[in-house]
Amino acid sequence: MPVVGMVGGGQLARMTAQAAIGLGARFRVLAGAPSESAAQVTHDFVVGSHLSLPDVAAFAAGCDVLTFDHEHVPGSVLTSLESSGVLVRPGSAALRYTQDKLAMRDRLTSLGAPCPRYAPVSSVADVEAFAASGGGAWPVVLKAVSGGYDGKGVWVCSSPAEAAEVLGHGIALLAEEFVPFRRELAALVARSPSGQGAAYPVVQTVQVDGICREVIAPAPGLDPEVAASAIALALRISAALGVLGLLAVELFETPSGGLLVNELAMRPHNSGHWTIEGARTSQFEQHLRAVLDLPLGSCASSGAFPGAFTVMANLLGGTDPDVYDRYIHVMAADPAVKVHFYGKEVRLGRKIGHITIVASPGDDLAAVRDRARRAASYLRWGTEDGD
Amino acid sequence: MPVVGMVGGGQLARMTAQAAIGLGARFRVLAGAPSESAAQVTHDFVVGSHLSLPDVAAFAAGCDVLTFDHEHVPGSVLTSLESSGVLVRPGSAALRYTQDKLAMRDRLTSLGAPCPRYAPVSSVADVEAFAASGGGAWPVVLKAVSGGYDGKGVWVCSSPAEAAEVLGHGIALLAEEFVPFRRELAALVARSPSGQGAAYPVVQTVQVDGICREVIAPAPGLDPEVAASAIALALRISAALGVLGLLAVELFETPSGGLLVNELAMRPHNSGHWTIEGARTSQFEQHLRAVLDLPLGSCASSGAFPGAFTVMANLLGGTDPDVYDRYIHVMAADPAVKVHFYGKEVRLGRKIGHITIVASPGDDLAAVRDRARRAASYLRWGTEDGD
Repeated sequence: MPVVGMVGGGQLARMTAQAAIGLGARFRVLAGAPSESAAQVTHDFVVGSHLSLPDVAAFAAGCDVLTFDHEHVPGSVLTSLESSGVLVRPGSAALRYTQDKLAMRDRLTSLGAPCPRYAPVSSVADVEAFAASGGGAWPVVLKAVSGGYDGKGVWVCSSPAEAAEVLGHGIALLAEEFVPFRRELAALVARSPSGQGAAYPVVQTVQVDGICREVIAPAPGLDPEVAASAIALALRISAALGVLGLLAVELFETPSGGLLVNELAMRPHNSGHWTIEGARTSQFEQHLRAVLDLPLGSCASSGAFPGAFTVMANLLGGTDPDVYDRYIHVMAADPAVKVHFYGKEVRLGRKIGHITIVASPGDDLAAVRDRARRAASYLRWGTEDGD
Repeated sequence: MPVVGMVGGGQLARMTAQAAIGLGARFRVLAGAPSESAAQVTHDFVVGSHLSLPDVAAFAAGCDVLTFDHEHVPGSVLTSLESSGVLVRPGSAALRYTQDKLAMRDRLTSLGAPCPRYAPVSSVADVEAFAASGGGAWPVVLKAVSGGYDGKGVWVCSSPAEAAEVLGHGIALLAEEFVPFRRELAALVARSPSGQGAAYPVVQTVQVDGICREVIAPAPGLDPEVAASAIALALRISAALGVLGLLAVELFETPSGGLLVNELAMRPHNSGHWTIEGARTSQFEQHLRAVLDLPLGSCASSGAFPGAFTVMANLLGGTDPDVYDRYIHVMAADPAVKVHFYGKEVRLGRKIGHITIVASPGDDLAAVRDRARRAASYLRWGTEDGD
């Protein structure tokens, strides 16, 4: 059995560990500490820093293939590993587009992939010029070129003064037009070294303050042609960038029904957690199959009836550290709720788990969303009427 | 988060570990060796003997509740743990009926549960008298009163001479009438300390040489009244025996459509592996919920369409130790096949994994069974045409 090493000990590695048990693939984790989410449940974990070449190289020496639960391993570390013969999947040439948003925008533009208007900026004058070139439109979105996640590193600036404050952080920035989107979508695909591709149904994601709160799979009422073009776009990007493993393409659906690429992620993605129960093959198993160059699994919905859907709600930390005490209520109230808990210390607003409801025939989308919201709220606050 | 300790490091513990990850329950395993199936994938395992009170007591000291992946912990160990305050679920009073088949038969008979005709035997004369009391019918089934599993400890004797040979083993034996069953069924239920019960659809199991080879869920063509009475029987037994956790009741369907109880198991059971993909709540999660006294999950089929079914085929060891090499063919041939590999060394005829196919609408049962059989055969022998 081959050994898959995953750099990063977060919940994505934790859920990948779960999938590896079934496949029988041996799974190792490089975690920052034994208390991290994935290290808690993985037999074979190593404590080390993903920023350190010696740490990552020592870890990789015990693995047949190396993959990631985040995109924060420095490019120089990745290329060093690759030159010493480590199978790094996805590789540095693909991962750089998740680490450098300017390079990502340039590359996607060269592929003809639809993106928001963008420009690198380093001064208030640059931002004002960018706004002016869009007809003087504010707000303007400023993004850290590297290092952002979950809404961190993204600022919606409604004036030059607000832009000046962000510029004061002294980090490399990118300006993007503010897209008044109808909703956010995500296309999740996998690609293997043999070149096989597989695509999940396009989902709708609901973000609050930059954090994903809810995913509906498939995206309700999405024009089938738009869905097909989102999937085709994601498969095209994954092939052009040479992605190995999963690629999540976060998209804006514009008021006119068009698509714009927002972000890319080359790993299991929050928008794909619904696949654990909702699809024939979970994204975590799919990622393992892809990086192991095994044939990919079926991405079809597990609720095999017309109109089948799945709702996933993220569970954020509240103020009470003991979530488990509230399992009883949630499970008693709704035997169809599946709880996934990441073993992370509860902190206000932190993603500490998620819940999934796979609809039954006859279920109403609004009602299932409400059940999911109530369960997540109860686990967070001890009341169904929180957020 | 509570700590669940499972005694036994086999595949049942391995798959329970997988379920515990989602629930966030901390999971410990008492394994005989670090190489055992569950120990390979569990962060927190202890090496020790399930026969030793000091070993099991030391293990239990770190657990909030103790449960089992087999029924071989001696009754004296269980009662000692209970008197020292350990939450043992299921408890010794229930587990004794899995350890003593004569006590099980007597108890079931007192409950009015339909059983094959039986009697304790200690001589050929006893066996002949038993056969004579059934109209002189041979064959007679001899069973070890304790310690049997997977066809071990069961002998179908067609003559007094064959019975004499079995009696020569010098172990406590039970004679049972040979039931010319139409097929074998299994009813799987869960029961929690709060008294909640939950029941999965009744399945058909196919045994070859005493080893389960295939499970079809639900049992095709089963009279709904027979199905309901099988579930009612299992729930009644679980309540009467005070089972906490899962109870699997293996049943014979007689030629006239009646039911007879064959065996009981109080743990996740091979006949329930299909629930990982095929039901809303897997038997492993259900067992954890039950022993933690959490509300039980939905047992409904995940393939939520009329006529939905799931086929599970056990994967037995062949002669080539490297099963992984053959994943590629199986996965490429059928993207709907889910492989579960237990990490056990390949030995001829040993259960080393299983595969599951959840049917899609329009799928034909015979065709899905054939796909499952071909996948299992290929993984075993490198050809689809083996057994």
